[in-house]
Amino acid sequence: MLIAVDAMGGDYAPREVIKGAIEAAREFPIDIALVGNKPVLEMLLRRYSRKKNISIIEASQVVEQDEDQVQGVQNKPNSSVVVGVNLVKDGIADGFVSAGGTGATVVASFLNLKAVEGVERLALCAVAYLNQPQPTLIIDAGVNVNCRPIFLVQFAQLASILAEKVIDISSPKVGLLNIGSEELKGSTLAKEAHQLIKKTDLNFIGNIEGFDVLQGKADVIVTDGFTGNVLVKTIEGYSQVIQNLLELGQAAQIDRYLTGAALAQYMQLNATVKNLDYKEYGGACLVGLEGNIVVAHGRSRAKAITSAIYLAYHAAKQGIVEAIKNGKYASE
Amino acid sequence: MLIAVDAMGGDYAPREVIKGAIEAAREFPIDIALVGNKPVLEMLLRRYSRKKNISIIEASQVVEQDEDQVQGVQNKPNSSVVVGVNLVKDGIADGFVSAGGTGATVVASFLNLKAVEGVERLALCAVAYLNQPQPTLIIDAGVNVNCRPIFLVQFAQLASILAEKVIDISSPKVGLLNIGSEELKGSTLAKEAHQLIKKTDLNFIGNIEGFDVLQGKADVIVTDGFTGNVLVKTIEGYSQVIQNLLELGQAAQIDRYLTGAALAQYMQLNATVKNLDYKEYGGACLVGLEGNIVVAHGRSRAKAITSAIYLAYHAAKQGIVEAIKNGKYASE
Repeated sequence: MLIAVDAMGGDYAPREVIKGAIEAAREFPIDIALVGNKPVLEMLLRRYSRKKNISIIEASQVVEQDEDQVQGVQNKPNSSVVVGVNLVKDGIADGFVSAGGTGATVVASFLNLKAVEGVERLALCAVAYLNQPQPTLIIDAGVNVNCRPIFLVQFAQLASILAEKVIDISSPKVGLLNIGSEELKGSTLAKEAHQLIKKTDLNFIGNIEGFDVLQGKADVIVTDGFTGNVLVKTIEGYSQVIQNLLELGQAAQIDRYLTGAALAQYMQLNATVKNLDYKEYGGACLVGLEGNIVVAHGRSRAKAITSAIYLAYHAAKQGIVEAIKNGKYASE
Repeated sequence: MLIAVDAMGGDYAPREVIKGAIEAAREFPIDIALVGNKPVLEMLLRRYSRKKNISIIEASQVVEQDEDQVQGVQNKPNSSVVVGVNLVKDGIADGFVSAGGTGATVVASFLNLKAVEGVERLALCAVAYLNQPQPTLIIDAGVNVNCRPIFLVQFAQLASILAEKVIDISSPKVGLLNIGSEELKGSTLAKEAHQLIKKTDLNFIGNIEGFDVLQGKADVIVTDGFTGNVLVKTIEGYSQVIQNLLELGQAAQIDRYLTGAALAQYMQLNATVKNLDYKEYGGACLVGLEGNIVVAHGRSRAKAITSAIYLAYHAAKQGIVEAIKNGKYASE
């Protein structure tokens, strides 16, 4: 199995991307194709590793974070993100991971990959480790800022397939993010989506509120791309603040002074916040297209890149694209 | 100055409300009128305090959390929330605090108080202690789930008045919650609101993202009531998870093992998360009406009630209603 990786995308590219890819090539039974500036990548690869299962594919251009992402993709056919997506399109790679601009990855995928029949909109499904052993899926994490109710129903259907196939949750609990638990609460969009999701055969647990997001009520959290983006980024921002506390605790070797239940609880909370940290985990699947595309966080360090590659590898192994193509989707 | 308090509203009413009110009557130069079931309140008041600056005003009904809030308010003219709002309307009380259902307080206020001329919609402005010494205002925290761009402009104007008069921030920084920092990003609502807010004389710093909410970028965070509600509740939910860590640290007396910079940082983080805790702080001002109404968190314990009463007292002292009546608001 071959996973292509955008070696030029992300705040710490190419160095951290390459380190993360090397670790993934060591840990998982996959080949990796690093996509980007060949001379630079060859040099770095020589420095860090001589693994045989990593190759380099030339892409002479880069879509920069601060340029218009749509124009960037259109004007740069040799950019790492376009070349990477096309490796998937042509069946050469089984998946593509990029920590570059989400906009560029979405646009490059949208322009080059076939849409799944019956699916109205592609969406970003964030695989987030919240306060649970298994990850929670948040869909849409930022592609569709203006939604119709049918989009949200389909997001629920797409993410449920992902939860079953990739996260291995049977009959995943689907919650609709809303401002109250009663079904008549919320915006017009949320109210109409509620009624439509109720009619599907999904395991719909009804509305969930912001307060419930970290309490493990739902396996799949459905919302529009505006609210979803705010939600995911707020959790990230909070984690950034709290992370300091744990680093301090580690530096002070607090665990040396704790015993019994207190020690166990301290270790568990350490793990909880670590799991909330996008620097370690993170990755979102672009669903609704005939291709296995994983968006990694722009601030990804090597560990997060390795995690995102694992997500792409595992999704490919589980046949996620076929499963989504075979899915049944609500229509208007 | 008289502040009326809904003694029957909130998950821990009447006991915790009364305790919080007693503390407020001790700490601040105000009289308090407890609104609710007179025999019960008299008994509790006798048990906890004999302060002279607390009186009781009879309200024989209660709008329950699980009933329809609009119908509840309409069918129960003698409910504590309606009686309390009317004390403000009649000029008897200078402010009213309720930890009962937000819906009931909003409806009772909307039906009984005059709207401020030129203001399209009343809104809930949450006074949130995030990661800063001074609080941040989040508007709208949950009243208007479907918004037009002009509403968001007016929210920014209303909250800026509140920030200047009540929080004492001169020229408060206004951020529009969005999914990217560029002004052309976001939903139709956010994009149009951005252009309109730019035209005002507010100190508009542009879009802010979820990640920035806890980084102190803005003094006023403007968004629609759907996103605002999700935002506020997500932060609460996260705080609930993290609070355990600090309680554990306190129980283990971790500070005894820390010295110098590590100790200082530990104490600061303790304060940060404590400030994020709705059990201690919290309170939201209902703005856009001719009355000083404060919504306290439904899960308020005594401390949070005392804080909410302080907010009402301070807002009254600063003449918030007059300031909002004298404000200039954008029109379509």
